[in-house]
Amino acid sequence: MQPCEIQAIHDASLAARLDAAIDNKTKPRGSLGALEKLARQAGLIQRTVTPSIERPAIMVFAGDHGIAAENVSPYPQSVTWQMVENFLAQGAAINVFARQHGCELQVVDAGVNHDFGPRDGLIDRKIGRGTGNFLHEPAMSAEQRDRAMQAGRELVRGLPGNVIGFGEMGIANTSAAAAVMHRLTGIALEDCVGAGAGLEEAGVLRKRGIISRGLQRHADAVEPLQVLSAFGGFEIAMIAGAMLGAAERRMIILVDGFIVTSALLVASRLQPALLDYCVFSHCSDERGHALMLRHLGAEPLLRLGLRLGEGSGCALALPLLRSAIGFLNEMATFDSAGVSERND
Amino acid sequence: MQPCEIQAIHDASLAARLDAAIDNKTKPRGSLGALEKLARQAGLIQRTVTPSIERPAIMVFAGDHGIAAENVSPYPQSVTWQMVENFLAQGAAINVFARQHGCELQVVDAGVNHDFGPRDGLIDRKIGRGTGNFLHEPAMSAEQRDRAMQAGRELVRGLPGNVIGFGEMGIANTSAAAAVMHRLTGIALEDCVGAGAGLEEAGVLRKRGIISRGLQRHADAVEPLQVLSAFGGFEIAMIAGAMLGAAERRMIILVDGFIVTSALLVASRLQPALLDYCVFSHCSDERGHALMLRHLGAEPLLRLGLRLGEGSGCALALPLLRSAIGFLNEMATFDSAGVSERND
Repeated sequence: MQPCEIQAIHDASLAARLDAAIDNKTKPRGSLGALEKLARQAGLIQRTVTPSIERPAIMVFAGDHGIAAENVSPYPQSVTWQMVENFLAQGAAINVFARQHGCELQVVDAGVNHDFGPRDGLIDRKIGRGTGNFLHEPAMSAEQRDRAMQAGRELVRGLPGNVIGFGEMGIANTSAAAAVMHRLTGIALEDCVGAGAGLEEAGVLRKRGIISRGLQRHADAVEPLQVLSAFGGFEIAMIAGAMLGAAERRMIILVDGFIVTSALLVASRLQPALLDYCVFSHCSDERGHALMLRHLGAEPLLRLGLRLGEGSGCALALPLLRSAIGFLNEMATFDSAGVSERND
Repeated sequence: MQPCEIQAIHDASLAARLDAAIDNKTKPRGSLGALEKLARQAGLIQRTVTPSIERPAIMVFAGDHGIAAENVSPYPQSVTWQMVENFLAQGAAINVFARQHGCELQVVDAGVNHDFGPRDGLIDRKIGRGTGNFLHEPAMSAEQRDRAMQAGRELVRGLPGNVIGFGEMGIANTSAAAAVMHRLTGIALEDCVGAGAGLEEAGVLRKRGIISRGLQRHADAVEPLQVLSAFGGFEIAMIAGAMLGAAERRMIILVDGFIVTSALLVASRLQPALLDYCVFSHCSDERGHALMLRHLGAEPLLRLGLRLGEGSGCALALPLLRSAIGFLNEMATFDSAGVSERND
């Protein structure tokens, strides 16, 4: 990918003005909890005390994974393309939630093992028909990885809005994400590997064994970009690049679940200031996600036991971001409303 | 209050049909977590596999508390009526959030220590100008309590919709709620008394001492209705009655924070099936709320560190209820979308 540089959002003077604006609203100080932090973050990202949400979008990146040949998922690989068709037909959960919240949905073929042909509503950035099986070879070449990241970055440049959420679809991609997580964080593999789309415990143990062998096969992959090509998916690489592109444009980034956060693990190791732009929409029920979030120092907005992907958590968190920005812009102050302040 | 009877929502045949509908949607089973439980509950309440949300409303009940004379709050009592004015002028957090979610807001004077005069948008059900100071006398008489509960019940009967959230405003009402909680649950007083609108720890200790003396003063108040008159507020009694009225009409009830849940403690002791109708919108940052919820076996949707009241948590949770009902009504099935099911 071409060089990129993300600016930290720190600005002491603006932060003080935001704090003053938040504390002057007619409510006890701090009583809107996480929404107050979110309002402050939005203001710092947008460099204003009156942040706004313009044309929010969710981009869902789909890709297939060579490791699916090892039966690490209870679903066949064909579900990846079938779900892409479902997205295009407006039938998936993310379609329902995006529609509910007036959020544009873009569907990107990052590397699905299927020939869709030219299709209305499908953005074709196919890098290949699925990655290599990381048990035997790197998931992708350095060239493919860079092309995927650059494609993600450029897709984001074309968006008209200032809020972007990322989602994914890819049978077996929790295996890819777990390998990336283990190698980049050092967290024990058993804490990184979970049930994915719904494996029983025996299946999880088998999946862990396969991932463990894959990790041994690529013992030399230690730098973030190496780890990404060894184990990642085309959708994971494209999301990593898109996140960097979004932060370059100072967009608010909604982070979804286990897979999307694994892309952030890679991207934030390249550009740590990227984390300043991230709103962590939820903590997934997938085993490793809570530890992944803790590793990033992230505080998720929702804990609903979701484990669906597709960017569904981003869509569900969007109204909370709207509420945070809404209270900051629309609430009265103690002064304007004639409400008494504290006695002390 | 006049006799009322709440029906349990249990219906094995309908529950099985709802489970089948939820499991046939194009997503791994259970992967929408809490939203799946919520969809099932909404269906059971409305006795249909296609539940809906019609004209949701939030009712905010305001009342003053005699115990405020003991300086248990950092804010002066006048803030209660000033905040009512703020609600009417659309300047409070609940105004912003209700507007955001297309939720009607009704403001009820349950017993504020202020003469508002006839005011557009203010529903006058004033039982008195604040309750008695429970350090020296019962907060209210049995007659006042019954009148408040009946008023709440009748107000709900006049609503056109099928979803109702309850909020409150009343300086010192965390003291009333903490006393109610301790007496009805037996949970240690130190776990029931918190910072309210923002007391420092020394203030919390002082507040706890005052509540403890009040509890001794009314040692004979043990039955739910006795506890409500000894310590409660006019807004708390009115919410308790309104909740019963809402469940009589089989409405979905959004439960807010510490004070509103204390009203539910009372009302659900009178009619345990009331709990079937309740959606617990959030776990508040007020010390006792998590334990109160656990006592009720309740699983809150949001954990945002809120401690504002006003029904703000209800409004913030409403989009999640919409999402739950939305996925049930709008998502494709495996069959309709042509998506493969699990291998096993």
